[in-house]
Amino acid sequence: MKAVILLSGGLDSSTVLYQALADGYHCYAISFDYQQRHRRELQSASAIASSAGVVQHQVVEFDLRLWGGSALTDQTIDLPQRGLDEMSQNIPVTYVPARNTIFLSFALAYAETITAERVYIGVNALDYSGYPDCRPDYIQAMQEVFRLGTKLGREGQPITIVAPLIHLKKTEIIQLGNQLGVSWDLTWSCYGGGDIACGVCDSCRLRLAAFAELGLVDPLPYAE
Amino acid sequence: MKAVILLSGGLDSSTVLYQALADGYHCYAISFDYQQRHRRELQSASAIASSAGVVQHQVVEFDLRLWGGSALTDQTIDLPQRGLDEMSQNIPVTYVPARNTIFLSFALAYAETITAERVYIGVNALDYSGYPDCRPDYIQAMQEVFRLGTKLGREGQPITIVAPLIHLKKTEIIQLGNQLGVSWDLTWSCYGGGDIACGVCDSCRLRLAAFAELGLVDPLPYAE
Repeated sequence: MKAVILLSGGLDSSTVLYQALADGYHCYAISFDYQQRHRRELQSASAIASSAGVVQHQVVEFDLRLWGGSALTDQTIDLPQRGLDEMSQNIPVTYVPARNTIFLSFALAYAETITAERVYIGVNALDYSGYPDCRPDYIQAMQEVFRLGTKLGREGQPITIVAPLIHLKKTEIIQLGNQLGVSWDLTWSCYGGGDIACGVCDSCRLRLAAFAELGLVDPLPYAE
Repeated sequence: MKAVILLSGGLDSSTVLYQALADGYHCYAISFDYQQRHRRELQSASAIASSAGVVQHQVVEFDLRLWGGSALTDQTIDLPQRGLDEMSQNIPVTYVPARNTIFLSFALAYAETITAERVYIGVNALDYSGYPDCRPDYIQAMQEVFRLGTKLGREGQPITIVAPLIHLKKTEIIQLGNQLGVSWDLTWSCYGGGDIACGVCDSCRLRLAAFAELGLVDPLPYAE
């Protein structure tokens, strides 16, 4: 049994990879070099993929700076540093238009070519409810695309999208990752591209707060 | 009013571009360099975009040879040369897994960034019913993704997918293109990558048969 795992190198997708392995799948990881600001995460994706023992790790390259539109692909937009209470209010400037749709499309192409049964994705509706393409109804819509837009789907063997973290809080994801043996020191969540995580961007704050809430220490070094 | 047009440089997508212009839209064309075998079509896309007077023409590059799986991305698979009666029977080897899903995803990202109202695509269910991602139910599923997976869609302004050719026969598409003033000599349909269209691949046969049925002469030169 084969599964394709969308692997960014972050805490969530790394946990999902270990979940797919625990579910008994031969794992094929896929990452994206879209000229994102936080390129450091691609190194983390490779380290995690290698440490977990995937069958193959594909890195697809394209350039989303072509049209910009997000703080993650446009260096002229400042990265947000908000309080945790502000984060769930609005769609943040780190939203990249159609990013998960693009990612899932490539995962679908890869999965159909290797005849995989599942595509795993680490979306999470609770902590980041600001992103439209992380919600359950969106994932269901993509599932229909997986069913109708492929040869496998038309032949009655649709590739299933699995989003095991979708209803979990960040603290619950960390607990799950601990059970599964994820090496947090290999992961990368910071939106900045530095050698050390900044500790103040939305993503760092969310991660640090969750470790703190659990009374655990995040093994990653932080600048602040 | 802005629209994004998926433009391959072929007969169908060129007609669609002219339809979008006739519908009154400022047109933003998008093409894909996915290391396809028939790279000649990208030159046609540029020529058509320029001739039609689009506002912008983006070419997105990525490499679908990473995992192969299609005669269009894998040089080791022979191109089909079938009779017209055989073509609608099965999903052909020229099927590229999830290709339209990938194309529409990028078009969605582009459209949301420039706040376009529509994405035009030249899919056609009749002549090539073998392709799963050219059928009306698939397009409807993608429409749901457009609605649920974007900020604009969540705010009640979903980008609409328009597929004006979906129920037309190839002869009807040529008649429509003639009315709209498409320059057929700038278009390219051949699956081969030569300087002159081969005249014998599925795509050339379909095109030539349609021109012949209408009693018209295709202005493109052909090798056979």
